[in-house]
Amino acid sequence: MTHFDMYNILDRKKKGLELSEGEIKWVISNYMKDEVKDYQMSALLMALFINGMTTKETAYLTDAMLYSGTALSFDDKSIVDKHSTGGVGDKTSFIIAPIAAACGVKVPMIAGRGLGHTGGTVDKIEAIPGFKTDLSLNEFKTRLLKDGLVLIGQTKDIAPADKRIYALRDVTATIDSIPLITASIMSKKLAEGANGIVMDIKAGNGAFMRTKSEAKKLAKSILATAKRFDKTAVTLITNMSQPLGNTVGHSLELIECIEVLKGRGPKDLTELSLHLAAHMIQIAGIEKTFSKALKKAKLSIKDGTALTTFKNLIENQGGDKKVIDNYALLDIAECKTEVKSPRSGYIKSFQTNQIGFMCTELGGGRKVKTDLIDFGVGFDFHKKLSDKVKRDEAILTIYHRQSQKDLVADLSKNFVTNIIKLSPEKPARPEVIYDVLVN
Amino acid sequence: MTHFDMYNILDRKKKGLELSEGEIKWVISNYMKDEVKDYQMSALLMALFINGMTTKETAYLTDAMLYSGTALSFDDKSIVDKHSTGGVGDKTSFIIAPIAAACGVKVPMIAGRGLGHTGGTVDKIEAIPGFKTDLSLNEFKTRLLKDGLVLIGQTKDIAPADKRIYALRDVTATIDSIPLITASIMSKKLAEGANGIVMDIKAGNGAFMRTKSEAKKLAKSILATAKRFDKTAVTLITNMSQPLGNTVGHSLELIECIEVLKGRGPKDLTELSLHLAAHMIQIAGIEKTFSKALKKAKLSIKDGTALTTFKNLIENQGGDKKVIDNYALLDIAECKTEVKSPRSGYIKSFQTNQIGFMCTELGGGRKVKTDLIDFGVGFDFHKKLSDKVKRDEAILTIYHRQSQKDLVADLSKNFVTNIIKLSPEKPARPEVIYDVLVN
Repeated sequence: MTHFDMYNILDRKKKGLELSEGEIKWVISNYMKDEVKDYQMSALLMALFINGMTTKETAYLTDAMLYSGTALSFDDKSIVDKHSTGGVGDKTSFIIAPIAAACGVKVPMIAGRGLGHTGGTVDKIEAIPGFKTDLSLNEFKTRLLKDGLVLIGQTKDIAPADKRIYALRDVTATIDSIPLITASIMSKKLAEGANGIVMDIKAGNGAFMRTKSEAKKLAKSILATAKRFDKTAVTLITNMSQPLGNTVGHSLELIECIEVLKGRGPKDLTELSLHLAAHMIQIAGIEKTFSKALKKAKLSIKDGTALTTFKNLIENQGGDKKVIDNYALLDIAECKTEVKSPRSGYIKSFQTNQIGFMCTELGGGRKVKTDLIDFGVGFDFHKKLSDKVKRDEAILTIYHRQSQKDLVADLSKNFVTNIIKLSPEKPARPEVIYDVLVN
Repeated sequence: MTHFDMYNILDRKKKGLELSEGEIKWVISNYMKDEVKDYQMSALLMALFINGMTTKETAYLTDAMLYSGTALSFDDKSIVDKHSTGGVGDKTSFIIAPIAAACGVKVPMIAGRGLGHTGGTVDKIEAIPGFKTDLSLNEFKTRLLKDGLVLIGQTKDIAPADKRIYALRDVTATIDSIPLITASIMSKKLAEGANGIVMDIKAGNGAFMRTKSEAKKLAKSILATAKRFDKTAVTLITNMSQPLGNTVGHSLELIECIEVLKGRGPKDLTELSLHLAAHMIQIAGIEKTFSKALKKAKLSIKDGTALTTFKNLIENQGGDKKVIDNYALLDIAECKTEVKSPRSGYIKSFQTNQIGFMCTELGGGRKVKTDLIDFGVGFDFHKKLSDKVKRDEAILTIYHRQSQKDLVADLSKNFVTNIIKLSPEKPARPEVIYDVLVN
């Protein structure tokens, strides 16, 4: 066997040379054995960040992290996964998974928790009383094949190397590297055993990628890596310059999702969810064309099968399915305060990431990993970008606790002075989906 | 006070931005308090390595490391320090310090131990029975002002941040960065309180800097940094494409130094030592011109004052001064084996660093920091670059122990097949000093 050592690998990468498959596998396997130290790994991550990674290196890293844990694999072509890079009010999982599953796609969901300005899918579903996400990988597999839909939290069995490396990137300013993000996402997605992947890459001031061109770079990197692993992938570049849908906050978002499944949801959220689901349906081979897949997705809302599928998911995982028809079963904060417009005009912009941080301030998010979440707090926006608003008209409602009056006064002031900008002229209504890229 | 945090500092440096004085000081002070972690420091070192450092950043880092410990300071303009980047057979300290001191320079020496292919000044002087190098900084200061010459080992009081950072660079492939080397050398030299510095920067296959142009870059970086601290500095770029002088090994090198001080040393070692010492004499303001300083240095050998100064140093620090006249008091290995030339020709090249490693193999160096050194082993070269050698004529003598016969056979073979190359034509005799740069 070839002999590798970390000094030499660091030396080569710092000079901008391409690392070999053997070198990258050696690093990951020895890092997991603590033979490569954190201080060496962080130096390598910085070198990878600054000097970049080739498509080959990205694929090798993906592969090495993927096989650091259990890698599931299914023969079933209809297993299609989805992923979103995350944003404020991003709740599509609870809509597209039931739609796709209702149309015959098998949807494996291993989802994360929220931190900072974005919420997490696992936290949001836990707002449903009784819902359990801590299933074993075996239960996950069984449920997926039997029910066609399952949702669990991150498990240490899946890509444990990614978990350790991500924690290190988080404290060494090496998060925002396209190839490192690609390897992190793809190692987990590939380990889930899906045969196709639909990726929602958000661009804008509420997203990780601030510009469309950055988002496109990540999309291309994801597609190239998926191709090297022989997986069909579709990436949508979508708008995150305002919260998706109208609500931000755990219970509020869940209700909004159920409303979409009942055919009464906000336009942007419904449109994006249908498109993402349609791509999953097409990749699964259930419909040949996108337009047929989209039609099928729409029908699943109209005929109630998507809603039923969601209800079954809740029941299968121990949750109280009565929430579907009785939102009062969810924890909703008892106080509502309207934020009123100081003058008339059109909504020109939102500081979207700040909206996420403000929800966290209310308790509806985590500042540090150990924080508990208040499911009941959040925001309900009555106005979106380019909407007309009159003086003293409510732009949004803050859901909060009795004890938070002072905080809410501060937040309200912040909303009208900093977060929401008005203009006298009506701005163009923003697109929901900027671009679709396929590998 | 401005608030700094490591994430932001890493983020700025990875993007290639210049760090401020405040940021660099904050990093070093918090690293010493263990609030900045090793894995963050190593990521920063990699970013500094790849993205480079401006002259300002280098000076800020030097300053921060300098003040991480005790910084000595003297009013006395005649205190001039010297430093060599190190090479094989580099033993000039024991020659130039006595010469300079004999001529009125006060010479503070805080020297290192050897590792890998280069020996250390402190190890070499310890070959003299009784010589003590573990004086306190206070004793160091007193002796310097009283005797004009003192030699001690690295102390934890001087630039402790450099010590920790160097250890981290050593395992993360971030040693060979010109600005990081500059800050490492200069923080220690400035902490010793000298008012001027003469630096011997070696270039060639026995040195850290392989090429003259690399050595020149380091020289310029050192000079610019010295200038920012208002110190006069002279750098000599010197030849390290063969061992300096004729000997490699602790006792052998000490004897050679004493021979130089007696006026009987090898030409290259004598010439370089006289030049380095003359620059110290000139910087100290003892002579106005270099040629007068050089004349004074030569005279100190001729009239025996340099040798007496060295004898006094040995006595002052507890060593047996009789070694000056009786080399048998030193430990010299009992066996000598000649390495003979397989054919006639001229010496074309040495793999100089390999000669250092081979001395380490014999026990005359350290592979790891805890190794004990055999002072008695080493090499005595009878031929140097461009010298004529006849078939079966001895090129060098190996000094070794009785038990090392097999190893010596291997080394001998390696010398004639790999380390020493002959050519039929006489190559030009190499220069000893390539260049002199002043700030």
